[in-house]
Amino acid sequence: MSTNRYEGVDAILDDGDEYDAYLHVGDEDDENLYYLSEFDAPDPFTLLRTQEGTTVLLVSTLEHGRARKESNADEVRNTNEFFDGDRRGDPEARVDALAAFLDEYDARNVAVPQDFSLYTADMLRKRGYAVETVADPVGEARATKDEDEIDEIRSVQRANEEAMRRAETLLEETERHDGALVHDGEVLTAERVKTEIEVTLVRERCSLDTTIVACGEGGADPHWRGEGGLRPDEPIIVDIFPRGASKYFGDLTRTFVVGEPTERVREMYELSVEAQEAAFDVLAEGADSGITGEDVHDAVCDVYEDAGYGTVRNGDETGFIHSTGHGVGLEIHEGPRLSTGGDELCAGNVVTVEPGLYLPDFGGVRVEDLVVVREDGYENLTEYPKELTV
Amino acid sequence: MSTNRYEGVDAILDDGDEYDAYLHVGDEDDENLYYLSEFDAPDPFTLLRTQEGTTVLLVSTLEHGRARKESNADEVRNTNEFFDGDRRGDPEARVDALAAFLDEYDARNVAVPQDFSLYTADMLRKRGYAVETVADPVGEARATKDEDEIDEIRSVQRANEEAMRRAETLLEETERHDGALVHDGEVLTAERVKTEIEVTLVRERCSLDTTIVACGEGGADPHWRGEGGLRPDEPIIVDIFPRGASKYFGDLTRTFVVGEPTERVREMYELSVEAQEAAFDVLAEGADSGITGEDVHDAVCDVYEDAGYGTVRNGDETGFIHSTGHGVGLEIHEGPRLSTGGDELCAGNVVTVEPGLYLPDFGGVRVEDLVVVREDGYENLTEYPKELTV
Repeated sequence: MSTNRYEGVDAILDDGDEYDAYLHVGDEDDENLYYLSEFDAPDPFTLLRTQEGTTVLLVSTLEHGRARKESNADEVRNTNEFFDGDRRGDPEARVDALAAFLDEYDARNVAVPQDFSLYTADMLRKRGYAVETVADPVGEARATKDEDEIDEIRSVQRANEEAMRRAETLLEETERHDGALVHDGEVLTAERVKTEIEVTLVRERCSLDTTIVACGEGGADPHWRGEGGLRPDEPIIVDIFPRGASKYFGDLTRTFVVGEPTERVREMYELSVEAQEAAFDVLAEGADSGITGEDVHDAVCDVYEDAGYGTVRNGDETGFIHSTGHGVGLEIHEGPRLSTGGDELCAGNVVTVEPGLYLPDFGGVRVEDLVVVREDGYENLTEYPKELTV
Repeated sequence: MSTNRYEGVDAILDDGDEYDAYLHVGDEDDENLYYLSEFDAPDPFTLLRTQEGTTVLLVSTLEHGRARKESNADEVRNTNEFFDGDRRGDPEARVDALAAFLDEYDARNVAVPQDFSLYTADMLRKRGYAVETVADPVGEARATKDEDEIDEIRSVQRANEEAMRRAETLLEETERHDGALVHDGEVLTAERVKTEIEVTLVRERCSLDTTIVACGEGGADPHWRGEGGLRPDEPIIVDIFPRGASKYFGDLTRTFVVGEPTERVREMYELSVEAQEAAFDVLAEGADSGITGEDVHDAVCDVYEDAGYGTVRNGDETGFIHSTGHGVGLEIHEGPRLSTGGDELCAGNVVTVEPGLYLPDFGGVRVEDLVVVREDGYENLTEYPKELTV
């Protein structure tokens, strides 16, 4: 049940005789190129998909052997075959090499992604090639994961839970002192907790750019990363989104209070768990029932609005002020969206379900699980318990 | 002595009346945009530099407050001022918002970077705007670091040395057993050493994508990351290039042998240290003397060629097969180049000096320091000792 990664590209090429080929130039930050080719390299490389359904990679000598072994391309060509070494330093030499490569495959009219380099396109057009952008032909396939991809995400989520456990354990080990949380004689800071989270993930062969450990009123801004000393009796949002060696992400949020939460914070927390359950109830109907990302989001908004809180659906600026969730895969944010306007869900969608409430005077709470949409329901990839007080 | 970050951009705009403004759209992976604006955000944002020398940022509501506080822009505008919310999901709505923004600043003819989005450019041109690519207007300024930048790089290099020390300590703590290096009863692997390097760096608030720990014959490929069990009496290349919280990189390589190196490996190592000294001798003349990146590279090639080894300068495929060094800053590889064709060096250039030898039957050795070019000499930002045997 492996997805055909080129389905969207081939659909564009099949659509009459408009394009001879699909051309994509990118580097290791280009997840669509990685998804298509199953290959990545630090330096830019080129993918060509022809009308006939042949995939050709154009890579440097350095990467040639690895590209032949690791990529799914039918042919791997070497840039040296086309590049005039005497013109090193001449920016147009690269364009001429690309043009010579296109000529080998009779590609005079090429479809390219929207973010294709303007310079390269202008230079190709000057040489008589037709270069036209097409809407993302990969996003839909990427949003639908096969079982191998789901396994990769599941295993990152397991590592993620180890890191969450480390954070919670640190919180458990603190003592209250002068309104601060003290660990081993020092005030426990957001920075310290993040470091321990990251160390745990590095040991699990995961990497991560940032982590959120947001305590108190600052947590009312859902994008605040958090800093400084952590305090008892206030909500602490811990949101971790590591990337595994497989390049797939995990995503997990819990909210903790060390000590005694205020009544308001407890209500906000319980309501968020309830809102998440409401989302799960919709997802339990499964993709075959035609549920949409908007249906899931609406269920969450209903719970919050019924309890008198503002929502993003109503245009409010406090309360539940973000979407219910997003797809997770080779990027931490990808399709589908669980929000107003969110489309019909498909079996294989891997999405976060992360209701939360944000009130300037109280701070924020959020609970986030990662689930996979199935034909007849959903599977929660998250096992970490939900317990507010530590 | 702070660099004028907009110097290159303003030079393009001053050049007659060709362009009304310089337009740059990017996200947090766009180091030129960060360098110009001193601001970064996960979602794409827009920078406009006008003929009059005014810098305007166009950012989302979410980033508006932070952009005003952190960026060097004269004005920060909100995308909501220009975006028609009812057209959400319509890809052209974004282009219309950008066009409306350009109109506010009478920018009908704009210069853009070469990798500007083809889709956006085509849509703007359709609406009557002139959009033309210009050669990188930021690279030259970025290659010349001011003292604040040098301090950031120095402090990353200190953290880097902590990680190198951890790696060397692990090697020291091994015992030889059946042709393997054993640590705490287990074969010490490249993966284990990399993990400990990464843990050290995470504790120093640095991040890193990859590290090289390459033992034995595989090390003859300078791009091999290394894997599997480490062995005594064979060269082990450890190359670490972390990024600090400041977004600046460090870069450091040492080669170790646990036990007794072969005579050939010892010769390769001593020659590489000698080649590095020859490079330093050229750098000691300082930027004011007009030395070039090619001069430094030539000094290294001379040492290797005199000893009978192949070099990249001679087109050889074994021996010294890469350049002598590269600039380091917001990217791990940036200008200037210490290689054939390398330009005149400037005070403030921060470059690696990393001669190495690669022989298929013996493996590889490399020694790499990070130095800053000064008017009258150079300063080595690296303090880590050079000692082959552990």
